Amino acid sequence: MFHRRLQPLEILSPGSLDVIEAGWRRIVADHGIEFLHEGALERFRAAGQRVAGEVVHLDPDWVLEQVAQVPAEFVHRGRNPERTIRFAADRMVFCSSQSAPFVREGATRRNAVYDDFVRFVRLTHVLDELDTPGYPVCEPADREPETRHLDLQMALIRETDKPYGGAQFDPIAARDSIAMAELVHGGRRAIEEEPALFGVINANSPLRFDTRMIESLIAFAEAGQIVVVTPFILMGAMGPVSIAAALAQQTAESLAGIALSQLVRPGCPAVMGSFVSHSDMQSGSPGFGGPESALGLLASGQIARRHGLLWRAGGGGLTSAQLVDAQAAFEALNTMLPAFLAGANLVLHAAGWLESGLVACYEKYVTDIDALRILEREFTPLEVSEPDLTLESFAEAGHGGHFFGTAHTLEHFRDCFYRPLAFSTESYDRWQSGGGKDTAARAEVRWRKLLDGYEQPPLDESTADALEEFVARRRREIEAEL
Amino acid sequence: MFHRRLQPLEILSPGSLDVIEAGWRRIVADHGIEFLHEGALERFRAAGQRVAGEVVHLDPDWVLEQVAQVPAEFVHRGRNPERTIRFAADRMVFCSSQSAPFVREGATRRNAVYDDFVRFVRLTHVLDELDTPGYPVCEPADREPETRHLDLQMALIRETDKPYGGAQFDPIAARDSIAMAELVHGGRRAIEEEPALFGVINANSPLRFDTRMIESLIAFAEAGQIVVVTPFILMGAMGPVSIAAALAQQTAESLAGIALSQLVRPGCPAVMGSFVSHSDMQSGSPGFGGPESALGLLASGQIARRHGLLWRAGGGGLTSAQLVDAQAAFEALNTMLPAFLAGANLVLHAAGWLESGLVACYEKYVTDIDALRILEREFTPLEVSEPDLTLESFAEAGHGGHFFGTAHTLEHFRDCFYRPLAFSTESYDRWQSGGGKDTAARAEVRWRKLLDGYEQPPLDESTADALEEFVARRRREIEAEL
Repeated sequence: MFHRRLQPLEILSPGSLDVIEAGWRRIVADHGIEFLHEGALERFRAAGQRVAGEVVHLDPDWVLEQVAQVPAEFVHRGRNPERTIRFAADRMVFCSSQSAPFVREGATRRNAVYDDFVRFVRLTHVLDELDTPGYPVCEPADREPETRHLDLQMALIRETDKPYGGAQFDPIAARDSIAMAELVHGGRRAIEEEPALFGVINANSPLRFDTRMIESLIAFAEAGQIVVVTPFILMGAMGPVSIAAALAQQTAESLAGIALSQLVRPGCPAVMGSFVSHSDMQSGSPGFGGPESALGLLASGQIARRHGLLWRAGGGGLTSAQLVDAQAAFEALNTMLPAFLAGANLVLHAAGWLESGLVACYEKYVTDIDALRILEREFTPLEVSEPDLTLESFAEAGHGGHFFGTAHTLEHFRDCFYRPLAFSTESYDRWQSGGGKDTAARAEVRWRKLLDGYEQPPLDESTADALEEFVARRRREIEAEL
Repeated sequence: MFHRRLQPLEILSPGSLDVIEAGWRRIVADHGIEFLHEGALERFRAAGQRVAGEVVHLDPDWVLEQVAQVPAEFVHRGRNPERTIRFAADRMVFCSSQSAPFVREGATRRNAVYDDFVRFVRLTHVLDELDTPGYPVCEPADREPETRHLDLQMALIRETDKPYGGAQFDPIAARDSIAMAELVHGGRRAIEEEPALFGVINANSPLRFDTRMIESLIAFAEAGQIVVVTPFILMGAMGPVSIAAALAQQTAESLAGIALSQLVRPGCPAVMGSFVSHSDMQSGSPGFGGPESALGLLASGQIARRHGLLWRAGGGGLTSAQLVDAQAAFEALNTMLPAFLAGANLVLHAAGWLESGLVACYEKYVTDIDALRILEREFTPLEVSEPDLTLESFAEAGHGGHFFGTAHTLEHFRDCFYRPLAFSTESYDRWQSGGGKDTAARAEVRWRKLLDGYEQPPLDESTADALEEFVARRRREIEAEL
């Protein structure tokens, strides 16, 4: 896991932060948040909040009291304890790209299928930089929507021993994923003590949570699993065309959702979600990786810290590009680097995201891993001591000489510099005689090689049997209800 | 000009900074710096420094006394006073790519010619983000090396009214460029009061300045022009394979060169140059844009500030890539963003650099400008006040509604978000029906359009005549000596 030790960059002045703080307070109190779920409304009413129709007018101080119950640190257990994640202020968790219906593989763009799901989980497994596949590393079109979650949860358990995410878009699926986690980890009590799943709960921005998301939130919170409450705000569509307003809105929505999680189970682990970007006002399409994304990330970190919350960066590695080209790399880095600068604790979509999230791309997986590896080195403070100066080397090289053959170089040349997966320093002639491949083409070679090196981690046979039995039974039950 | 208002990122602990400080002091004193120039040796000797052969063993405290004479701020005058640059701690100056012998234009890679030089100067002129073309925006193969500087200086004066750089690689050329600047700005005294040129003086690392560079340095310093003393250290070749050692070496070389400039003319404007990157230890080729470049930039800024010096980032926009592809964009941003984070005062190679500097690329010019525009927005502190919250919009949109048509959106949609030159948010179908162009192909359309909009700034006729006369005379004189 990456331990972040540099101070986060702060771009909001204290005065500006106060304005945003005043903003979310007025939004939750005056406009209120709509919760399309009678049970949730009842809980808010019982806690003394004013409910008008389906809109809850929240007392902001009460919201902060709820939020204060969220633990400052918690683990996310993997079935291999060595892969268990620790969520903490100075840690960064990196998660694969999520939810793409399409896949790009080389020059081919097509519907995602189950085999892609398995391959992306395997890539996540072999790459140390990725702490978790999350849940829907892609959305396979060759599996029925009603029972897909059973196959995908099974694949997440079998193909990796890293912690993974619960099925979050539907409460039935959420409960099934919790039941399967219980089978993996030895029962309900075990996962209540140390959560085994995180569930990403999206607000239906602006200022609304819909029925299914609330039910999923309640299911995860009841089981003490990690709730990541994320408004997805494309300014101009789900929010005003103002970063300040979108930040106030995001804070209002996220804190309101977290407050509900604490009503369900005080002390439930929760993460403040952030996802602010913009709509291209000419095309109406979403845009990622421009200044708006970066400013949104930097400011979100400041706001989360003000409330003592761990926070999710909407994503690192985001891009609207259609190919793994210059735009893709620029936008990806211009979301990942701000996530590092802002000290995000959970970075979704950290590998593979393309085409505004519609595509999970194998080649992008590789270039994103290069980015992660490079940034992890850059964000490790440079600690220098006298031997690092290697003053004797200067005498050895001499004035105007060179260092290829000095003792210090010969001792360190193998591992002194970062060696990229897909980037090339070849001279033009050599590069051309090797086929003149661009970065995306070189990345294709690398992910195939990475997959070749995959080995399935062992899964206890009785656990596997219990899971298979559960999946078979639930499949029959769900199909019977269709 | 870009006014940088965020605090620079500091990656070296005070203790680590002390180690590097002790390192450069030992290097200048114990190893000494070689100056292959009798006049320079004489000046050091007269100032009480120990000279052994051509190596000067410098008293580090004396070096710092010299460095303390460098002004904290100065201008770099353009022939259009509105284009005059101010060098100051909180300003960033962006300069075009420099010195490439080759050009990439679309799919073609070829020798640079004079027409390329003119076109790159014109691109610099039309793009507000670039403060100066510098000097050799490329190295035209169709001009004789001995007289090329006359043509290039003339083109820099004619094609733009922004400040530009002196001819720095050769003292004859340096003196000619100073004489031409005198003709442009009304005499020697005028440019001594406010410098009209900067000269980049490269150390011949390790620990050596060669004869021609020293003579150029002396010529610029005598005329009070800006001296940018830059060691170019590829670790593993011109420096040890240790960032700490390379930083100590860079500081030693740069401060020694600046000390010489102050011996020549106390108070001469000077900039501490930095350029630390690595050699690929497998191929021996230079590498840019990895963690080593970024760490080198971040640390260089800290060191320069410790000595109260303005500093040059080796470059922003650097890359080893052969094409304007994902690697090119990643590495370019991973040098430009650290230059912003570290608070560089002069950023060379900010647009157009490709293939480790061997190529000046038109398409890269455009993607680099997108990067600059985006980063300038990101590095402007987010100042927020109550109206930015546009709380009335939330009532207007309603819970779960959208903001496309709110009054606030309609008022601001034209300029609320950054609109890129070459990046696309088009849907896949629309993008494909538009030809499925990658970023580089879209960038090609943009630079041609930018050049179409170029208008030559007026040049006073008598000045133009005087310059033409000077160039003709000097050409005759130089050719006679061949």
